[in-house]
Amino acid sequence: MTRKLHLNAFIMGVGHHEAAWRHPRTDPNNVTDVRHYQHIARTAERGKLDSVFFADGVALFGNVRLNAIGTLEPITLLAALATVTEHIGLIATASTTYNEPYTLARKFASLDHISGGRAGWNIVTSASEPEAHNFGIERPDHGDRYARADEFLEVALKLWDSWEDDAVLRDQATGEYADIGKIHEIVHEGAHFKVRGPLNLPRTPQGRPLLVQAGSSEVGKEFAARWAEAVFTAQQTLAEGKAFYADLKGRLARYGRREEDLLVLPGISPFIGSTEAEAKRLEQEFQELINPVYGLAQLSSMLGVEVTESDLDGSLPELPETTEGGKSRFDLVTDLARRDGLTVRQLIGRLAGGRGHRVIAGSPEQIADQIQEWFENGAADGFNVMPPHYPGGIEDFVDHVVPILQSRGLFRTEYEGATLRENYGLERPASRYATPGELVEA
Amino acid sequence: MTRKLHLNAFIMGVGHHEAAWRHPRTDPNNVTDVRHYQHIARTAERGKLDSVFFADGVALFGNVRLNAIGTLEPITLLAALATVTEHIGLIATASTTYNEPYTLARKFASLDHISGGRAGWNIVTSASEPEAHNFGIERPDHGDRYARADEFLEVALKLWDSWEDDAVLRDQATGEYADIGKIHEIVHEGAHFKVRGPLNLPRTPQGRPLLVQAGSSEVGKEFAARWAEAVFTAQQTLAEGKAFYADLKGRLARYGRREEDLLVLPGISPFIGSTEAEAKRLEQEFQELINPVYGLAQLSSMLGVEVTESDLDGSLPELPETTEGGKSRFDLVTDLARRDGLTVRQLIGRLAGGRGHRVIAGSPEQIADQIQEWFENGAADGFNVMPPHYPGGIEDFVDHVVPILQSRGLFRTEYEGATLRENYGLERPASRYATPGELVEA
Repeated sequence: MTRKLHLNAFIMGVGHHEAAWRHPRTDPNNVTDVRHYQHIARTAERGKLDSVFFADGVALFGNVRLNAIGTLEPITLLAALATVTEHIGLIATASTTYNEPYTLARKFASLDHISGGRAGWNIVTSASEPEAHNFGIERPDHGDRYARADEFLEVALKLWDSWEDDAVLRDQATGEYADIGKIHEIVHEGAHFKVRGPLNLPRTPQGRPLLVQAGSSEVGKEFAARWAEAVFTAQQTLAEGKAFYADLKGRLARYGRREEDLLVLPGISPFIGSTEAEAKRLEQEFQELINPVYGLAQLSSMLGVEVTESDLDGSLPELPETTEGGKSRFDLVTDLARRDGLTVRQLIGRLAGGRGHRVIAGSPEQIADQIQEWFENGAADGFNVMPPHYPGGIEDFVDHVVPILQSRGLFRTEYEGATLRENYGLERPASRYATPGELVEA
Repeated sequence: MTRKLHLNAFIMGVGHHEAAWRHPRTDPNNVTDVRHYQHIARTAERGKLDSVFFADGVALFGNVRLNAIGTLEPITLLAALATVTEHIGLIATASTTYNEPYTLARKFASLDHISGGRAGWNIVTSASEPEAHNFGIERPDHGDRYARADEFLEVALKLWDSWEDDAVLRDQATGEYADIGKIHEIVHEGAHFKVRGPLNLPRTPQGRPLLVQAGSSEVGKEFAARWAEAVFTAQQTLAEGKAFYADLKGRLARYGRREEDLLVLPGISPFIGSTEAEAKRLEQEFQELINPVYGLAQLSSMLGVEVTESDLDGSLPELPETTEGGKSRFDLVTDLARRDGLTVRQLIGRLAGGRGHRVIAGSPEQIADQIQEWFENGAADGFNVMPPHYPGGIEDFVDHVVPILQSRGLFRTEYEGATLRENYGLERPASRYATPGELVEA
């Protein structure tokens, strides 16, 4: 079988560009409107995309005075998208720091049942201070968050395995609803969690949700290599993309995993026009709506250093290296500024489209060329598509870019399977508690 | 305006009768099938019922060998029902003991947005030991659970109020997305929670979800009087129903509330036949499917005392009074056994239909008569309808009982409003942070 691209639509309000809500192609009233998200999911499904995905955090970040911030909780929202779609995967972000494993495992298992096997979990550890302050604690440090995350995953996987696939009998005649020999207490006792189990619902169509991750720190990459089945990442150049791809794939063997067990999906934010000039004009319209006050605050947040007083037309000042969590994002931003010799204003403009993800403006063919180049040169198994504006940006991608990728034989024309795992080409895991079948004499 | 009944459909798997899953009118494969629940919700909406409701717990309770236990998490499930209904309220159970206020407030606010103002929260404090053991703690005592619940409600209400109704401006021209003078940190610091806020989404159509509760202990009733807008309760006789109703309504004044601010909805599990004899035959079919081993375990759980070794054909043995939480349920069960002089087997049979809720078998007119009698005699503002089998039991109720209630002028023929609060006849609360409008000179 020819290797195929995988495409995820990263949904964010009315678009990934920070000024999207001000552009005439969007309606900012859509930010909390479920019908808007249903339309996007159906459009992505029309384009045979693998999945849709929502980021999330458990605080009101950034400057809500100037941007469309504050929206629906993703798991709840995805359940509402599950019922109007049939094939597309549904990936929600949730935190291992501010949830309990029993509660979160139950929610994802419920979403997997409701969607017929289309649930995915983007695992985050919640690096920010405002989030900690909504849960009565000081921000735990990077190492502590990942230690908790590792144990959280151990517990969640045990819970998802706690009912074997054939535990439910539903034998109306005998009155045996389940074989309790196939429903297991997990009796987990670790440094962070003590959980008896079993989970209170049967094993799900996928066995467990697809596990997604986006950390780029050393600890984050090791976490991904251990647990993740898809990784969303921000890479600006083909060289960086290849290095990250090789780095991550190279870490899998030590966890007994194969390269094909994890998909690397860099972010790409495409401004699409019928010609390159039209695409650039569209990008320019968005750039002109940027508020530098907002941009400076965003830049400060990405760097982990306060730069709101910087001269917009000077270069980025010398900065102390950040120590907490965001090092990979800090490096990405400072590399970008240095490499292209950007002023602060130009840097803000470059980050406004995708918060450090790659922004490209071009004709459908040019976008497809970029995707093909990375895919065929060891930098990507597919892409995390981040339209600058919604819903128009995904409509344009599905109507104009996807057909080119399909005609080049790079992308599916029909879904391969019924579940997200099947479409991502990943195995359905067996329950760790499953007893091997008895040997039958030939 | 004439006072109208309020009717809630309490959804539970394939029915409230503990042997429902074995009866030919059900399909036990429906227990984890979202389409089953969508059909029930649409049927209830066709009957103009106020709401549907799911109970929940965060452990696998009871004997899954013998009964259809273990199902979908309610908030996630209700989001999937919201998209296939337009009017009916959506009430989910969630625990104050095993959630964090920020997380849960966000989920209910999301459900309220997604459903256009139809979310309700049945507040529970999670009395059981197996639940505690899924969260690494020993079961907190009754008083501690309610103390946490009180503070949880304070925090949740502040979070739901944290965006004033007119905080969102979405002014594309000026670039002002929100008026941050109308988005408030809550800075809550109490014995159980420290939460900075604000919530990370705008105020919801209902301001906050409808608050529902079902505790019947002294502490539980005080909690209801302080917070609840609807109370689900188990009452066996009209006299008991009247006493409970008067008791609860009488507690409201001390919290500055009016009698009409809280609806009392006793449970009723109706076996419906075209004649009384047919209804009784249907009930008998279900009773014959009861497994006494399961029934004894359920009885033990309801009493809080181990009685699995009891003689099925003798009377209930003398029991030590329970101390932990379930006293009202203990009294209900022992009163029932004593009042009607039941053997243990007969008691199990009486509890099998509704776990202590009132079970009645009769023609549609007889069911309607019972509902009317309680409604007009100070025992109920409406009912929590608990069909013994799903979906047939709600279809029968909607097709045969509802039209009688409507023809008697007791029940609506069209929804009064767009939100659950409007249909329950309850006010939409203002945000506590809202600034009174400026006085305008006449």
